Amino acid sequence: GAPPPASPAGLSAYVAVSQLLGLTLLATTGAWLGRYRGGVAWHSPLQFNVHPLCMVLGMVFLQGDALLVYRVFRHEAKRSTKVLHALLHGLALVIALVGIAAVFESHRAKGIPDMYSLHSWCGMAAFVLYLLQWLLGCSFFLFPGAASSLRGRYKPQHIFFGIALFALSIASCLMGITEMLLFNIRDSYSQFVPEGVLANTLGVLLLAFGLVVGYVLTRDEWKRPPLAEELALSMDFKTLTEGESPGGS
Amino acid sequence: GAPPPASPAGLSAYVAVSQLLGLTLLATTGAWLGRYRGGVAWHSPLQFNVHPLCMVLGMVFLQGDALLVYRVFRHEAKRSTKVLHALLHGLALVIALVGIAAVFESHRAKGIPDMYSLHSWCGMAAFVLYLLQWLLGCSFFLFPGAASSLRGRYKPQHIFFGIALFALSIASCLMGITEMLLFNIRDSYSQFVPEGVLANTLGVLLLAFGLVVGYVLTRDEWKRPPLAEELALSMDFKTLTEGESPGGS
Repeated sequence: GAPPPASPAGLSAYVAVSQLLGLTLLATTGAWLGRYRGGVAWHSPLQFNVHPLCMVLGMVFLQGDALLVYRVFRHEAKRSTKVLHALLHGLALVIALVGIAAVFESHRAKGIPDMYSLHSWCGMAAFVLYLLQWLLGCSFFLFPGAASSLRGRYKPQHIFFGIALFALSIASCLMGITEMLLFNIRDSYSQFVPEGVLANTLGVLLLAFGLVVGYVLTRDEWKRPPLAEELALSMDFKTLTEGESPGGS
Repeated sequence: GAPPPASPAGLSAYVAVSQLLGLTLLATTGAWLGRYRGGVAWHSPLQFNVHPLCMVLGMVFLQGDALLVYRVFRHEAKRSTKVLHALLHGLALVIALVGIAAVFESHRAKGIPDMYSLHSWCGMAAFVLYLLQWLLGCSFFLFPGAASSLRGRYKPQHIFFGIALFALSIASCLMGITEMLLFNIRDSYSQFVPEGVLANTLGVLLLAFGLVVGYVLTRDEWKRPPLAEELALSMDFKTLTEGESPGGS
């Protein structure tokens, strides 16, 4: 057949920026924990530090990249892209679970109560709803049982709640950074000490990553066009293209 | 002519829920400040409390309602809806400015440095970008100078950044709540004291308001359909309907 059409010009640049931001925010998290918080280890007083590292990696970087696969792999078979989307979210969930276990074990070791802060309420809600969304997504879109009309009706909900949960995950990280700084450097934070500025910068990077990913996801012209064979195979053209119009330009 | 078509069934219910949530979150803010923080006053040690009240009212409730006007007034002339949109955002900006003045004056009175926290960085970014977005919106859409093709190109950016700034405003409030609780009730917060639970509930209400407003704004079937006379008047049908398709249902 014809050679596959190239990705829209701006899209590749935005995806590249998102990955640079993602790697930078992982490095910044590592630098904060390594340089100012004693590093990361499981069976030790440093166990708490596993928490921010896993949450940034799982709930932000991997979750964000899982959302981007439909924009990056625009001309692969839909089925492979779906499977990759589900696998990345699954990996994100496993890493987030390790991060949650770390904070609960660390609290127990130090005699600190669990789940009292707004950060913990929001973060736990984000994790539980993210797991639920993943289970719903697998049963609607990966297993062959769901009717095509049911898929078509659930799809816009899946997309809306997927982006909302990504935003909630980032907001939970920002509250977590605020808590960590006020617990650890309460008195010097207001003196613009390097640790405070570094952690604030991590917060800004988290927002920038979320902004770029959100822009790539919602820009109409960058939505994944249905492949010719998907259109030909589809019994119900309307269901397939709803929420996935090729857009202008 | 024909009687104006009714709003879609679900839309009115969602808008009603958003307004209930909005009023509840204002009441919850007032209850927190009144019952646990000594109330609100300008020239006094209570001046700080003007800050959370104004930010929740301006940057969340009024900003959210300004975003909703195109869904609520679906069959009014476009021009009146635009003016209302701009006026509500303008009022939100004035109230937010009072709230920002309150925290700077309160810091000065108590000798606390400004702009060191992640909350202050995010909140100030949200305010400055919100003001910029308002100025851009007025010059593109309210004043007659901008060409229709330029308006059509800017409109999707205006919508994306409008929703992103609304989300950033809510995230800034969540960090502000976290800061206030750790400064004021650091030791009893983990004992689930009523003030902590109330303020956490305010955070959850802020998220719920943002979620419902975001859902109403982004649902395809609820986008404002162009009026018959707008279509007739339009020289350039495509520009008018881009990003504003009547959608399926």
